[in-house]
Amino acid sequence: MVGIIMGSQSDLRVMTDAAKVLEELEIPFELTVVSAHRTPHRMVEYAESARGRGIQVIIAGAGGAAHLPGMVASLTTLPVIGVPIKSSNSIDGWDSVLSILQMPGGVPVATVALDGAKNAGILSAQVLGASNDEIAERLAQYKENLKTKVLKSVADIAENGWK
Amino acid sequence: MVGIIMGSQSDLRVMTDAAKVLEELEIPFELTVVSAHRTPHRMVEYAESARGRGIQVIIAGAGGAAHLPGMVASLTTLPVIGVPIKSSNSIDGWDSVLSILQMPGGVPVATVALDGAKNAGILSAQVLGASNDEIAERLAQYKENLKTKVLKSVADIAENGWK
Amino acid sequence: MVGIIMGSQSDLRVMTDAAKVLEELEIPFELTVVSAHRTPHRMVEYAESARGRGIQVIIAGAGGAAHLPGMVASLTTLPVIGVPIKSSNSIDGWDSVLSILQMPGGVPVATVALDGAKNAGILSAQVLGASNDEIAERLAQYKENLKTKVLKSVADIAENGWK
Amino acid sequence: MVGIIMGSQSDLRVMTDAAKVLEELEIPFELTVVSAHRTPHRMVEYAESARGRGIQVIIAGAGGAAHLPGMVASLTTLPVIGVPIKSSNSIDGWDSVLSILQMPGGVPVATVALDGAKNAGILSAQVLGASNDEIAERLAQYKENLKTKVLKSVADIAENGWK
Amino acid sequence: MVGIIMGSQSDLRVMTDAAKVLEELEIPFELTVVSAHRTPHRMVEYAESARGRGIQVIIAGAGGAAHLPGMVASLTTLPVIGVPIKSSNSIDGWDSVLSILQMPGGVPVATVALDGAKNAGILSAQVLGASNDEIAERLAQYKENLKTKVLKSVADIAENGWK
Amino acid sequence: MVGIIMGSQSDLRVMTDAAKVLEELEIPFELTVVSAHRTPHRMVEYAESARGRGIQVIIAGAGGAAHLPGMVASLTTLPVIGVPIKSSNSIDGWDSVLSILQMPGGVPVATVALDGAKNAGILSAQVLGASNDEIAERLAQYKENLKTKVLKSVADIAENGWK
Amino acid sequence: MVGIIMGSQSDLRVMTDAAKVLEELEIPFELTVVSAHRTPHRMVEYAESARGRGIQVIIAGAGGAAHLPGMVASLTTLPVIGVPIKSSNSIDGWDSVLSILQMPGGVPVATVALDGAKNAGILSAQVLGASNDEIAERLAQYKENLKTKVLKSVADIAENGWK
Amino acid sequence: MVGIIMGSQSDLRVMTDAAKVLEELEIPFELTVVSAHRTPHRMVEYAESARGRGIQVIIAGAGGAAHLPGMVASLTTLPVIGVPIKSSNSIDGWDSVLSILQMPGGVPVATVALDGAKNAGILSAQVLGASNDEIAERLAQYKENLKTKVLKSVADIAENGWK
Repeated sequence: MVGIIMGSQSDLRVMTDAAKVLEELEIPFELTVVSAHRTPHRMVEYAESARGRGIQVIIAGAGGAAHLPGMVASLTTLPVIGVPIKSSNSIDGWDSVLSILQMPGGVPVATVALDGAKNAGILSAQVLGASNDEIAERLAQYKENLKTKVLKSVADIAENGWK
Repeated sequence: MVGIIMGSQSDLRVMTDAAKVLEELEIPFELTVVSAHRTPHRMVEYAESARGRGIQVIIAGAGGAAHLPGMVASLTTLPVIGVPIKSSNSIDGWDSVLSILQMPGGVPVATVALDGAKNAGILSAQVLGASNDEIAERLAQYKENLKTKVLKSVADIAENGWK
Repeated sequence: MVGIIMGSQSDLRVMTDAAKVLEELEIPFELTVVSAHRTPHRMVEYAESARGRGIQVIIAGAGGAAHLPGMVASLTTLPVIGVPIKSSNSIDGWDSVLSILQMPGGVPVATVALDGAKNAGILSAQVLGASNDEIAERLAQYKENLKTKVLKSVADIAENGWK
Repeated sequence: MVGIIMGSQSDLRVMTDAAKVLEELEIPFELTVVSAHRTPHRMVEYAESARGRGIQVIIAGAGGAAHLPGMVASLTTLPVIGVPIKSSNSIDGWDSVLSILQMPGGVPVATVALDGAKNAGILSAQVLGASNDEIAERLAQYKENLKTKVLKSVADIAENGWK
Repeated sequence: MVGIIMGSQSDLRVMTDAAKVLEELEIPFELTVVSAHRTPHRMVEYAESARGRGIQVIIAGAGGAAHLPGMVASLTTLPVIGVPIKSSNSIDGWDSVLSILQMPGGVPVATVALDGAKNAGILSAQVLGASNDEIAERLAQYKENLKTKVLKSVADIAENGWK
Repeated sequence: MVGIIMGSQSDLRVMTDAAKVLEELEIPFELTVVSAHRTPHRMVEYAESARGRGIQVIIAGAGGAAHLPGMVASLTTLPVIGVPIKSSNSIDGWDSVLSILQMPGGVPVATVALDGAKNAGILSAQVLGASNDEIAERLAQYKENLKTKVLKSVADIAENGWK
Repeated sequence: MVGIIMGSQSDLRVMTDAAKVLEELEIPFELTVVSAHRTPHRMVEYAESARGRGIQVIIAGAGGAAHLPGMVASLTTLPVIGVPIKSSNSIDGWDSVLSILQMPGGVPVATVALDGAKNAGILSAQVLGASNDEIAERLAQYKENLKTKVLKSVADIAENGWK
Repeated sequence: MVGIIMGSQSDLRVMTDAAKVLEELEIPFELTVVSAHRTPHRMVEYAESARGRGIQVIIAGAGGAAHLPGMVASLTTLPVIGVPIKSSNSIDGWDSVLSILQMPGGVPVATVALDGAKNAGILSAQVLGASNDEIAERLAQYKENLKTKVLKSVADIAENGWK
């Protein structure tokens, strides 16, 4: 259902967070490396065949001059979620963020926070959940768990103090 | 199907682009003003009732310290698309972009380019089109039209020169 | 008198500085975790009940797309002091600073420096001291101590040289 | 009760917003020009005499390398609200914002948004309202008016459409 | 010899400067529109066929999330000169600059200044001139003309004064 | 054929990447230190004699207020490739990038990514390869190797999974 | 006594402010155009002959990748005051500021504010006034005038109100 | 002859570089701590008495919202050299740089690079050397030494290679 791609194997450090949250939400996904700049034809093929292979949302992560999410978006009508990655050759992440976010009119990329692969996974589930009540239900449960963790912090500080 | 909201009536200048592209793609939508900071309870009510009222995607635009998209995302399991707006009180748009993009783990906002309301409209259609072949078909046609316009530019320059 | 809240238990690392300075100034305070994005209803309740519970100033710290200070400010007439936090998912703190500082007309947040929780504590004391001579007196003493420490540095260098 | 100062008469263009909102909230204030760099002794005198003259909050606006708010804060125990101004010699306002916001530990300035003089006025009222129920009541009414204006926008669009 | 491409006909406003300087230096060139995001297949075809068609250098201009120069560079072994354009949907040009400049190891783009199409033209001539003495000679003459213009300014001020 | 220079011996840490890739591509080069600010006459001499000594492309790396690439470009008609270096006295590399990139009309510098010495080496080979089929062939092989490495990552993840 | 130079005649718009304030302070100066990138030899000659010709301070203004102040500083032991200029090809002035300010250890440039030519003039007078009591006296008078103008604003508002 | 001051003893880490270079150039100096925000009266006294005590140039270093250099400049006609310091509470140094650099018309600060205390020392010597041939001679020797060190690097690489 969800296709997770990234520009380089070194991006796996960040992008596993998307895979983990999809596992947790029991949503099937595939994960592979597709480089816009080193394997452009593989990228074209991946993007153009995605819908036909049953992919409904694509998550694409890349760093620096991050062209992968935008180029994939130019080659499919599926929603593409872009994850800017603060890679070693990035200027504090600004290049990754702006290269993914500032797409021209006509070709959107749904951009999440810098290194925000977990949120990309959740967002892909929300896209599926827009027309799937079971996934929506799991997302509601996920939100409930977030709240529970905060309330545990509240209780922890109330009991043990802030020092 | 799509709910378009914005923090202030003055944001309409930008946000109509989302409405126009949804009209063009024949996707039903509602549009209204919901202010996170001036009508927080209306915001809570809007976000929590959205799914029940048949909304499948929410587009939220705001400028400056733009809290509307993120707060709505905290109150629903629907996908929320955020449109940063370069309003008069914004520092070149950076505040709007960062306030919407940099959401914490667990609560994603699908952020588009600064003033990118048109792309927000297209992205909302892509979300619906992920599981709706008819909308996907219209999006493919939309993409085809983008290409045709470029080819017209190509022909125009080939005929008339670049001067 | 002062309510200290933060978006996550991990912010405690920074926010304890506010608590410590209030202890030093002998001003009573409460401290807890309130997440805008994970516990939005708790946030509404906290903000709306604060004045009634005797809180006179709220200090709210958050990182990344930091919506807590601004949302709390939208829900109370109390002065809200915002502390931008350079959290692990922040772009060098710029997102935290701009999300808190750039509030729209009508809903101010009194923003202090990045990770400036100590100053938030002092500022809350100054707010109380605006109409309380005893607290003002303690603040004058605090200022005197700052000066004394500088003069010790002066003497130290005068005696021991700069090497 | 409130002292409004600014670095230059040209800042009046922005700073009148603070005066107007205080008039609206029926809170007495004084307004004058105090330049940190051209009249440093006047600044020292203003800041040191303020509390004695009955001032409870100081609003200080300045642009570029904006030292006025921070220097005044170093000379009084009153809360100082800083208004960064995007003056003609400013680099898009970043210099004004950072010069006011990033005060060292011990000497806070309550910074509001760039050109946010209206919010400075409201914040000064909130400081007074922290221990004055009548002012708090007026602020609650002010908040109610903000909400009413939004609801008018809502009704306007509902009736007349978004086009 | 030189291929000039740009992402949109609206970029012609900037990119004609490259064409003009090549005319002046009597270097043959072609000029057309190739959009990475709206005509990705045309881009692949253009880039892969360029060397075979006798192109020796490619100048590619684009704004916002500017992927054209980098994607073309991924598809050819020719040197690609990238021109960041401050288009209407750009954040002060930073997105265009970083999307073009920050290419990953292995796939360089020779980036010039924001809106620096004239310099892109000159740089393409320098590339050709690296192994072509006649073009090198014309470039030396061009440099001489730049100097002459400065010396005219010098004489103008010496005669007429600076007022 | 290629001249590699840098502002300080400490830049060697970054600039060796240019030398290594030229070795790999079997392109002859020389490498030395030329400081714009500490040896300005040596810089003038180096730049003006380069073409005569058979240099066809110059790669110049520098950090902070990086004047070396631009000044060399002002003194030769050879193409100059600038490598911004994130040196210890740089503000996150922004000063290096902007000092090299933003050259005035008439004097281009082909700027590569921050610390992008490897890409500078490849770009210099592309400049030579624009009119040299053998070098072009080696570059095509280099590109093929980049692709092969990506496909190995693909196979690695396909076999061993992403965990 | 003071030498004022600038990279282009178009910089005169800003740099006349330096000349005007030196006229007002009755300090002799010369003013001409010296381009680092278009007349590098003229720059070398100007800088190396300055002290011999009786120049005691050099004011150098430039925009974009502004190399003039730093290169002149590398060629003389005189103090060099750099004026970053927000020229038409500058990215909001950041390139000019960083290219002038961030000089490496050993070769300082005394940088003033963006477009701060007036302050460059005053600073050059302060340099001369460091060992010249008459100039110091004129500077004291200049400071007095600045104060007087502020006090006039004070009186103006006191009399006529702030509206 | 030279007065070196800094906002905090912790700035000594950076500011000793100014003292060391003045020792090397045999120029007498004094060094102490003067805090604008914690000892404002001491700052006024220091600045106003400096010329009378024989100080000819003041070097002032500070971090964050760095008001010390600008405020001292407002209180004396001596040239003031400002050193922006990247202190622990600074946002990557931008606040320090802009607070010192962007002084309003009439009150210049001669700003050097971030953490550029060594250059501040050299610049203070250049100010003195503007009218003192002996100091100018020492500065010429200092410049010569910089060159010699570069030439040693050149020889080192020529002999030992770049690997």
